[in-house]
Amino acid sequence: MPPSTHQAFLFFFFFLNIFLTSSSHPFDPLGQPELTQVQTIVTSFISSSSSNSSNQKIHFHYVGLDEPDKPAINSWLSSSTSSSNLPPRQAFVIIRVGKQTHELKVDLSNNSVVSNKLYNGNGFPTITSEELEIANALPLTYPPFIAAMEKRGLKMEEIVCESCTVGWFGEKETSNRIVKIVCYYMNGTVNIFMRPIEGIIVVVDLDQMKVTGLSDRAIIPVPKAEGTDYRQQNEAEGEGRFRSSLEEKVVMQQDEPNFSIDGHTVRWENWEFHLAFDMRAGPIISLASIFDPEKETYRRVLYRGFLSEIFVPYMDLTAEWYFRVFFDAGEYGGGLCTVPLQPLTDCPPDAKFMDGYFPNQDGSPAKTPNVFCVFERDAGDILWRHTETGIPNKLITEVRKEKTLVVRTVLTLSNYDYIVDWEFKKTGVITVTVGATGLLEVRGTEYTHTEQIKEEAYGKLLAENSVGANHDHFLSFYLDLDIDGESNSLVKTKLETKRVDGNWSERKSYWTTVSESAKTESEARLRVGSGETQLVFVNPNKKTKIGNNIGYRLVPGANVGQLLSDDDYPQIRGDFSKYNVWVTPFNKSERWAGGLYVDQSHGEDTLATWTNRDREIENKDIVLWYTLGFHHVPCQEDFPVMSTLNGGFELRPYNFFEQNPVLHAKN
Amino acid sequence: MPPSTHQAFLFFFFFLNIFLTSSSHPFDPLGQPELTQVQTIVTSFISSSSSNSSNQKIHFHYVGLDEPDKPAINSWLSSSTSSSNLPPRQAFVIIRVGKQTHELKVDLSNNSVVSNKLYNGNGFPTITSEELEIANALPLTYPPFIAAMEKRGLKMEEIVCESCTVGWFGEKETSNRIVKIVCYYMNGTVNIFMRPIEGIIVVVDLDQMKVTGLSDRAIIPVPKAEGTDYRQQNEAEGEGRFRSSLEEKVVMQQDEPNFSIDGHTVRWENWEFHLAFDMRAGPIISLASIFDPEKETYRRVLYRGFLSEIFVPYMDLTAEWYFRVFFDAGEYGGGLCTVPLQPLTDCPPDAKFMDGYFPNQDGSPAKTPNVFCVFERDAGDILWRHTETGIPNKLITEVRKEKTLVVRTVLTLSNYDYIVDWEFKKTGVITVTVGATGLLEVRGTEYTHTEQIKEEAYGKLLAENSVGANHDHFLSFYLDLDIDGESNSLVKTKLETKRVDGNWSERKSYWTTVSESAKTESEARLRVGSGETQLVFVNPNKKTKIGNNIGYRLVPGANVGQLLSDDDYPQIRGDFSKYNVWVTPFNKSERWAGGLYVDQSHGEDTLATWTNRDREIENKDIVLWYTLGFHHVPCQEDFPVMSTLNGGFELRPYNFFEQNPVLHAKN
Repeated sequence: MPPSTHQAFLFFFFFLNIFLTSSSHPFDPLGQPELTQVQTIVTSFISSSSSNSSNQKIHFHYVGLDEPDKPAINSWLSSSTSSSNLPPRQAFVIIRVGKQTHELKVDLSNNSVVSNKLYNGNGFPTITSEELEIANALPLTYPPFIAAMEKRGLKMEEIVCESCTVGWFGEKETSNRIVKIVCYYMNGTVNIFMRPIEGIIVVVDLDQMKVTGLSDRAIIPVPKAEGTDYRQQNEAEGEGRFRSSLEEKVVMQQDEPNFSIDGHTVRWENWEFHLAFDMRAGPIISLASIFDPEKETYRRVLYRGFLSEIFVPYMDLTAEWYFRVFFDAGEYGGGLCTVPLQPLTDCPPDAKFMDGYFPNQDGSPAKTPNVFCVFERDAGDILWRHTETGIPNKLITEVRKEKTLVVRTVLTLSNYDYIVDWEFKKTGVITVTVGATGLLEVRGTEYTHTEQIKEEAYGKLLAENSVGANHDHFLSFYLDLDIDGESNSLVKTKLETKRVDGNWSERKSYWTTVSESAKTESEARLRVGSGETQLVFVNPNKKTKIGNNIGYRLVPGANVGQLLSDDDYPQIRGDFSKYNVWVTPFNKSERWAGGLYVDQSHGEDTLATWTNRDREIENKDIVLWYTLGFHHVPCQEDFPVMSTLNGGFELRPYNFFEQNPVLHAKN
Repeated sequence: MPPSTHQAFLFFFFFLNIFLTSSSHPFDPLGQPELTQVQTIVTSFISSSSSNSSNQKIHFHYVGLDEPDKPAINSWLSSSTSSSNLPPRQAFVIIRVGKQTHELKVDLSNNSVVSNKLYNGNGFPTITSEELEIANALPLTYPPFIAAMEKRGLKMEEIVCESCTVGWFGEKETSNRIVKIVCYYMNGTVNIFMRPIEGIIVVVDLDQMKVTGLSDRAIIPVPKAEGTDYRQQNEAEGEGRFRSSLEEKVVMQQDEPNFSIDGHTVRWENWEFHLAFDMRAGPIISLASIFDPEKETYRRVLYRGFLSEIFVPYMDLTAEWYFRVFFDAGEYGGGLCTVPLQPLTDCPPDAKFMDGYFPNQDGSPAKTPNVFCVFERDAGDILWRHTETGIPNKLITEVRKEKTLVVRTVLTLSNYDYIVDWEFKKTGVITVTVGATGLLEVRGTEYTHTEQIKEEAYGKLLAENSVGANHDHFLSFYLDLDIDGESNSLVKTKLETKRVDGNWSERKSYWTTVSESAKTESEARLRVGSGETQLVFVNPNKKTKIGNNIGYRLVPGANVGQLLSDDDYPQIRGDFSKYNVWVTPFNKSERWAGGLYVDQSHGEDTLATWTNRDREIENKDIVLWYTLGFHHVPCQEDFPVMSTLNGGFELRPYNFFEQNPVLHAKN
């Protein structure tokens, strides 16, 4: 690098450092200037390193805040002059240079690369958006593919393609970084996923960025486009086949919301938490704390919580489908796949929006505008109520309305849109709801009627020539609980039937509770569903005045378990789907339930492999991993768009407060 | 009866008949004039009958519409001049006269008693409100009770009492109609349920209406009143310990709701249904039908749906508690226990309200004003959305907001308030949600700290001297499905893991679906929870164009099963709680899952006994019974009021439509 350029960089750094001090919270995500700074530091470092003498291009696959250690956070939190006590700002960076994966730690406070590690294990980092865009276009200029489309009588200008990750199916040799590309035929619709061109796969090597294979197995009818377009603008006036007879009400925007966002810190009613964007996880909630009116202080519930992985195995074993066992968050980047939220439709009128920043492939900063919205929800629900009719000559009715605070994000992973809502309630409840909507992955087929189906169809016929493939969604949530402090335990409380021995009672049975604290990881791997075991995370070092363990209950919604065989390759990689509940001792490196490098991973760095050590989890700083599952057997109502299907869970105070904290809430 | 009086009656009847013709729908509930008419007819009939020569008082325990037979309803529905074709208006009446229970059918169109049957079986009808009121006051003037209170140092003017049904515990002899009365000490609070006077029970015979027993077993401290009052008016200015910092937003009432209520028929978007009040069931939804934009007609989903029974067994075997195994709907009257909904708090500002009519004990009409509210809910949810990023140079985002229609009722059964929401969605989904809130039943105890508890406490210590008793809630919903017609079947679709034999696939496993139609009642008794069996109610005589069975899926929310032993007396009476799903062939007499006469019943007339016949249910007019269960292990947050805890289920179209019916919904 010529010296003059180098001096320019130094000046630039100085300028950035001034800017940096405006970062007010150690969990604040890297902003635009910081991303630029990381780009500069890393580019300079790699360019000057001996390993990159040929000046190969650097691709940034991940740049995010390298989370400060807990003692540094706690020290910052307890300091009165918080700005002076900020832990050093560091970035964790994953780049590819010359077909190699580097992990770097970059210190932004002194513009240095703290560490640079070559990753030689199995699996690859998140694919960049630019790689996908370029790869998707390659078949369209690849002569054998063009010939195959001509053979089918399809117009090239109506074809769009999408890259699928290829998974791992027991191959021993070191793999190339490839994707398999499947294509769709627009011709008359933008609903490409209802128009698959089946039987043909193009293989692209992402590092070489060229086509390395084509399999043209069969010609299968492309389902017809008619009626699949979902755009409102495409409907002729009056075409909407049912509509409100009355005009839409005018919704007035409120002047001021009932919550505040100060930097990344959100405050509403009795809650306070930090909200950050990460290009892999999407939204990260940190330091969620609730005000205790008796103790007159905020008490911690959640140190850090985020969506760790999304595993979507399809149940279709045909040649063009068997490998569709996606790890959406790790392969495509959960945060990278967030989409800008639409005011008034994705979020209510008085929502406030935040932007998310992440690096382009070249490291320069990019932005998803409106990546989060925060709004107060008034769904017409009731917080608590009672009508007292038992006191003579008195009728008492007291009702308090439920209002909650919602943080919403939408992740669009190709066809699927996941609406992820973190909802905070005055009662202390945190509800996480995932709404699955968007478009199905449909397989083209000869079938036009169910009577023609004589063999395994791997799904359900939804329209002529269209099979909706059976599949699952398993979402793993990372929940580093701090129930009123760092050291927590999982108490499993089983409801057990007791028989009455003898005649001392008119009853013959009742149930009572038997509680047991989970000592090691293996005792905390659980499926939920029967409702006969209640799971409470307690702080075993603290009790209420009358002696109950201070805790929070995990309250699962309807949920499902994994049906794949344990030894099946997708399941080895996605083994976090085997149980709904896992508990690990906190370990900074254990964040991604399917592994850090999940694209083409072999399942060596997963939640299940970590817990095989069977570490102690009693009275420790523990992490709850909750797997939320959906089995999806498609039906015709899922075609050509899917209405939102919700699933979720709650964290609910359980002897956390001395009494109901909303007794004195007003409407 | 003197002739002059008789003539007056005839004139009155004539007047009523004119009024009657304004009843426009055969499912309309009996209005005020009709209730008066029933009172008159029945009083006249009984007074003139030889069996009532001594002119004993008539107590009306139930008066409701005697549901017309299905052919009459269908004939009315298919008739163009519906008013002329109304089936005869008939009432079903249960009265007690001279310690005997009569079942009568009264024809309102010709002022006649069609049938009068003496009921000689076990069990008694719903207790009247007046009986409860009088019985509750009896201990307060009963000298031994007054002496017992003096012994405890309690002021009589601060004591209020409540009647508990007594259940059945295997007694062979014919029982008297009794209640056991428990009392509470207000002194400083209106939250009576936090202030039980333990160890003492007063027995009252309801037919004699006098005290017949008193058991004074032990003196136990009455929990202190401090901090238990939940009335807002009782809070000093500024006492509310956390409150919104900003002023409450002004909510403007909308001019016109987006739905219509025509008599008892509710229309909203693509839905139409009839909503009626019944003094036992509360809200009854009838003839719920959804408009099909392709077929351009309304298609039936639900012939009739209502809450059939609520079984609340407590798990406390002490002398004053073992019998608390309430059948709330049948013993106290689910509709009788509805409370007037408060505008702006129980229901949103633009809700519309309906009143409910029922007879007083003497048969004269009474009213619960605002017994239902109907409102359009906009919770900020998303009906469906998709962002399409896969088409080069195009970014498509389409979002449709979710709005739903809610019918809300609140049943207050002594301490507990049940919020029952029937929610209709444009997608065709019907969601039933039950919110449990109100006050716990707390047992007084010597304990002031958990360390003192060395033996079975039958619950959890929630405050000093206050144990929250472990208990369950099981709600049975009667759902007479008509999925696109009367003849339906239950198809159980099991998701089964398939191993790959040989090496023909890179995968080792997948899951597929195996469907089986339930042939008889025993094949339809199911617990839900694992999510591995999907339950679809189909019309086996109708298919979609491409050949799928037209159906609706039952989608359970989180649910629990019964833990009591099968041979325990409460469980024999409440055996509907053993399974979450039951299916029976339609039988007009089978409406109440715990029996028509559930107070002190012996479990002879229950859902389980009916299904023991194991009748055929395939391609029949069938009824789905869904049991929604809650296990409640109380925690301190439930004290002194409980925040709302929700449970529920959905009926969701599953190949009912040719495609997603909301593709063309507008925001």
